Amino acid sequence: MGSAEYEIQQRVEVQIPPTKPFFHSLKSSLKETFFPDDPFKQFKNQTVARKFLLGCQYFVPILEWAPRYTFEFFKADFIAGITIASLAVPQGISYAGLASLPPVIGLYSSFVPPLIYAMLGSSRDLAVGTVAVPSLLISSMLGKEVNPHQNTKLYVQLVLTATFFAGVFQAALGLLRLGFIVDFLSHAAIVGFMSGAATVVCLQQLKGILGLVHFTHGADLVSVMKSVFTQIHMWRWESGVLGCCFLLFLFTTRYFSRKKPVFFWVNALAPLTSVIMGSLLVYLTHAENHGIEIIGHLKKGLNPPSLSELETAFGSAHLTTAIKTGIITGVIALAEGIAVGRSFAVFKSYHIDGNKEMIAIGMMNIAGSCTSCYLTTGPFSRTAVNFNAGCKTAVSNIVMATAVMITLLFLTPLFYYTPLVVLSAIIITAMVSLIDYEAAIHLWAVDKFDFIVCISAYIGVVFGSVETGLVIAVAISLLRILLFVARPKTSVMGGIPNSMTYRSIEQYPKANLVPGILILHINAPVYFANASYLRERISRWIDEEEEKLKYSANDLQYVVLDMSAVGSIDTSGISMLEEIKRNADRRCIKLVLANPGGEVMKKLEKSKFIDTIGQEWIYVTVGEAVNACNFMLQTCKPKSKAVDEEADDKV
Amino acid sequence: MGSAEYEIQQRVEVQIPPTKPFFHSLKSSLKETFFPDDPFKQFKNQTVARKFLLGCQYFVPILEWAPRYTFEFFKADFIAGITIASLAVPQGISYAGLASLPPVIGLYSSFVPPLIYAMLGSSRDLAVGTVAVPSLLISSMLGKEVNPHQNTKLYVQLVLTATFFAGVFQAALGLLRLGFIVDFLSHAAIVGFMSGAATVVCLQQLKGILGLVHFTHGADLVSVMKSVFTQIHMWRWESGVLGCCFLLFLFTTRYFSRKKPVFFWVNALAPLTSVIMGSLLVYLTHAENHGIEIIGHLKKGLNPPSLSELETAFGSAHLTTAIKTGIITGVIALAEGIAVGRSFAVFKSYHIDGNKEMIAIGMMNIAGSCTSCYLTTGPFSRTAVNFNAGCKTAVSNIVMATAVMITLLFLTPLFYYTPLVVLSAIIITAMVSLIDYEAAIHLWAVDKFDFIVCISAYIGVVFGSVETGLVIAVAISLLRILLFVARPKTSVMGGIPNSMTYRSIEQYPKANLVPGILILHINAPVYFANASYLRERISRWIDEEEEKLKYSANDLQYVVLDMSAVGSIDTSGISMLEEIKRNADRRCIKLVLANPGGEVMKKLEKSKFIDTIGQEWIYVTVGEAVNACNFMLQTCKPKSKAVDEEADDKV
Repeated sequence: MGSAEYEIQQRVEVQIPPTKPFFHSLKSSLKETFFPDDPFKQFKNQTVARKFLLGCQYFVPILEWAPRYTFEFFKADFIAGITIASLAVPQGISYAGLASLPPVIGLYSSFVPPLIYAMLGSSRDLAVGTVAVPSLLISSMLGKEVNPHQNTKLYVQLVLTATFFAGVFQAALGLLRLGFIVDFLSHAAIVGFMSGAATVVCLQQLKGILGLVHFTHGADLVSVMKSVFTQIHMWRWESGVLGCCFLLFLFTTRYFSRKKPVFFWVNALAPLTSVIMGSLLVYLTHAENHGIEIIGHLKKGLNPPSLSELETAFGSAHLTTAIKTGIITGVIALAEGIAVGRSFAVFKSYHIDGNKEMIAIGMMNIAGSCTSCYLTTGPFSRTAVNFNAGCKTAVSNIVMATAVMITLLFLTPLFYYTPLVVLSAIIITAMVSLIDYEAAIHLWAVDKFDFIVCISAYIGVVFGSVETGLVIAVAISLLRILLFVARPKTSVMGGIPNSMTYRSIEQYPKANLVPGILILHINAPVYFANASYLRERISRWIDEEEEKLKYSANDLQYVVLDMSAVGSIDTSGISMLEEIKRNADRRCIKLVLANPGGEVMKKLEKSKFIDTIGQEWIYVTVGEAVNACNFMLQTCKPKSKAVDEEADDKV
Repeated sequence: MGSAEYEIQQRVEVQIPPTKPFFHSLKSSLKETFFPDDPFKQFKNQTVARKFLLGCQYFVPILEWAPRYTFEFFKADFIAGITIASLAVPQGISYAGLASLPPVIGLYSSFVPPLIYAMLGSSRDLAVGTVAVPSLLISSMLGKEVNPHQNTKLYVQLVLTATFFAGVFQAALGLLRLGFIVDFLSHAAIVGFMSGAATVVCLQQLKGILGLVHFTHGADLVSVMKSVFTQIHMWRWESGVLGCCFLLFLFTTRYFSRKKPVFFWVNALAPLTSVIMGSLLVYLTHAENHGIEIIGHLKKGLNPPSLSELETAFGSAHLTTAIKTGIITGVIALAEGIAVGRSFAVFKSYHIDGNKEMIAIGMMNIAGSCTSCYLTTGPFSRTAVNFNAGCKTAVSNIVMATAVMITLLFLTPLFYYTPLVVLSAIIITAMVSLIDYEAAIHLWAVDKFDFIVCISAYIGVVFGSVETGLVIAVAISLLRILLFVARPKTSVMGGIPNSMTYRSIEQYPKANLVPGILILHINAPVYFANASYLRERISRWIDEEEEKLKYSANDLQYVVLDMSAVGSIDTSGISMLEEIKRNADRRCIKLVLANPGGEVMKKLEKSKFIDTIGQEWIYVTVGEAVNACNFMLQTCKPKSKAVDEEADDKV
């Protein structure tokens, strides 16, 4: 008995995984889709009381870590909290301006939401606050409907309503375990989108720097530039000079802190220092009478409740716009918050549950919308400062909230003389670091398609609108997945010398083709979207192979399909295989399958394709399949070439 | 030197395919996307004159086969052509009624388009004609805007315009090589959609069968049923009895022909026989005065040119609706035509070029719209009859067109007395065979998800509208692809006894786990959509493995990721791998990759991940990776468990 024959008889059959009952497999696939992190694991085999406690701790993580909180931790958190508060106050005021809101709302938003987050959030580093891009989006989407300067009351109501719906949507995503929707914003899309938005925000700050009074509400490059250059006669040099000085100051401190990371606090305190210096300067020189715009009166006191505002807005005609704005800004804010939280968690190697974070962020926005706060999340810049300042737990957020509370109660009059140009300079400094051209270059180097996604998002945001950019980026990202499936790669495989291993000859040029056997590798699931392509492509491979062998002694007798990378198959795919089999039969070529996976085998069995092809023609490895074919080639008589050619002539 | 060490040193390195210049790889990927069938191959190495001839033959296939046409072929084509003409005349009149058009337009549509297709089409079996589902769609989409009975002229103009745009869209898809868009209508979606449409069309025929005069324009179950049952007092028994008789006749002949396929012509001639019998009956009994509606006067003469009608409609306010209708009906008609042409080509084993077929179908509709024809394609029923009648080439279409021409010139007065109820019976008989419940059962058995797609399309069409059904079906189909990518399967692999082969232990329960090494198989490309899922899932596998090993002597020391099925990776995926690597390093676990493909290796190299993980930790097969790990486990000292646990306590 030859060794090849021996192998054929002793071979392991390709297994069909045991069929599970329908509801069992449905349950397990739903679990993988919605509960991939298995949050119920900890509840197993526990008493009811313990389960209740664990449940409370699951939804309110502070209950879990507060008992273990120490004074050591508090010292660290206190320093971090004060540091981020010094950033929160000027940034809060600035971003409120970006959202066309009264500045005090920016301060309100740094008071209530951080407190809520400290209780519900599971990140130890996230510093809660308002963010630039969603602020811009709010003003560009709602500003179209209601003029924020002429009809401030209605505008504020709509912003609060949008915040409410953003919160509801965020919490709902988390509760319904749909967090993976956020994953569809690819990293490349976010880079392009954020850079574009930062560019637009920077350009808009020309209003403050140049001391312009009238300015476009548009958020695209063209209308901003038009607005700037049609008003050259209105430019104020005083404002411009002051702006440039502060920009220089802010960029220098940042550069310094980057060079020497121990002095991170220089950078962190720079915005507050600028505000103080700017205010002092205006107060002393009375520059407000010489073309420098100032914040003016800020209402003293804590956040007023705003439930009644929400109620009014619910009856307004603009409700749908507010809901739409809420959902879009909510998703973007969520994506930033989750990504930031996750990055720092990886740094400190603790675990963050995305869906739980969504609930926390959503709840803080719902609570915020009832207490005159607008949309908040975990901005990257503030979180990085928090991290650098050595925060240990979410208590740093509580410290920050307390500091903001004190500001609101006692210090608001101090901001009367703060010049708007300083706020513009602060925004520009924050935004410039978001324009991540290095990431774009990296994308170009590694993955051209990701670069296209990134650059389209950028162009969409800069020349169209923030929403356009977002839609384009998501659409192209999805298109990529669809294209991958619609045009899977097929490649010819050869044997790697001195082994039973077969690999693509494109990747391993030294692999040897096996005479008389065509081995094809399919690189994607076989679905309706690629079934007809694969049919065409495989028959083209066979044609080309036969063409090549036309004048040689060998005949193409076997086609081995390597199914290792075919993760799944649907009914269209099975019909495609059936057609290929028929086609091969007609040409007197034997079709052989190698290594179909469990899912694929199940479907092949149910559709009776295994009976069509014969279980004996399905092998666990390509090597075994080739051995078996070779054995047959050697023992059976080869087809007579002459007879074949005659037959060809007849047809 | 041990054998394991020997293997490690002699091993084949995982190759990085040679980098091609950017434009070269762009060109080749564009070629695979748009020209997978390589239509330019035949032009290579030819003289200019020959190239020109080949080009003409490419676009006008009749030039290629006409010189080889024989009288033998003509005899066969003549019989087939006459047979399908006998089907074309009653079907043409019936489907025109379904599209709310004057019956004669149905006859016109069986004259010009078949002639065009005979010249441009590459299928030898396709019989051109109008089809039921797009006819229904036309009347339901355009009927909403213009009442076909009160404003017939405008309605006809819009239908012709829709046909024109359908043709332009179809030809453009072919010219731009975008034929693969049609592939996104999965087989399951088409089954459900067609069955639903057939159900609705059947229900609508209750109008004809019951002799109702007023009827809903809605195409959903609810409004049709309402229309039928609110008019019980208007039902005409004469019409009902006649209808049931003809239905019985038609179903009996079909049953007979199915049982004895030699008598296919019995079924093929049955519609014409019914029309003749029905007309004679009405003529003799003057049943038109007793509640039996008849066709009435049909205009004699060939197709009038309709360019001026198109021109008028181009200026109308309903142009956008006409364009939308054209595009939707065009895609559906195209999908049917291509699928039918391809099926019969596979049967006779010749090749059909999808994109070329699209151009042919598009051109015939453009030409049709200029000569008073409405949307045509290759309906399944008529093509099957053509095939059974033994057609050899597209000449059978020319014969059919000639027969229809003779009808139009001389025989139209014969249809004066044809009762509408016969036409309804003909439509019902044709439609019932489209309700493919057997296919739905097959889908349920083989692939539950495909069944869901199918049944949603069905429900969408029957209870919503034809467009709703279509959108739902396509959306669910795409969602499936996205879900496959978003939630890839990961599984633990074990060694198959007595071999170097490692396979999923789910599929091969006898595979042995390797102590100290966790081998994970990833089943899909690693993209942004699944990067964070995979990160969570892989760390959960590691956690679970460590949990299991807690009280055993072994430690988890190696994680081998089998990348065989990872067809592609993007920058988010690479970041994910980097994070897993960091995470593994922190736990003192070594990350090993097995068999990354060419694409993946290229990206890993460009992003420097290969340097991070070390080229020596990437293996061609899982077997080699495991051998190397085992060798290290045996030679190096195992980590002291005690030390580890101490370290754990500290953290």
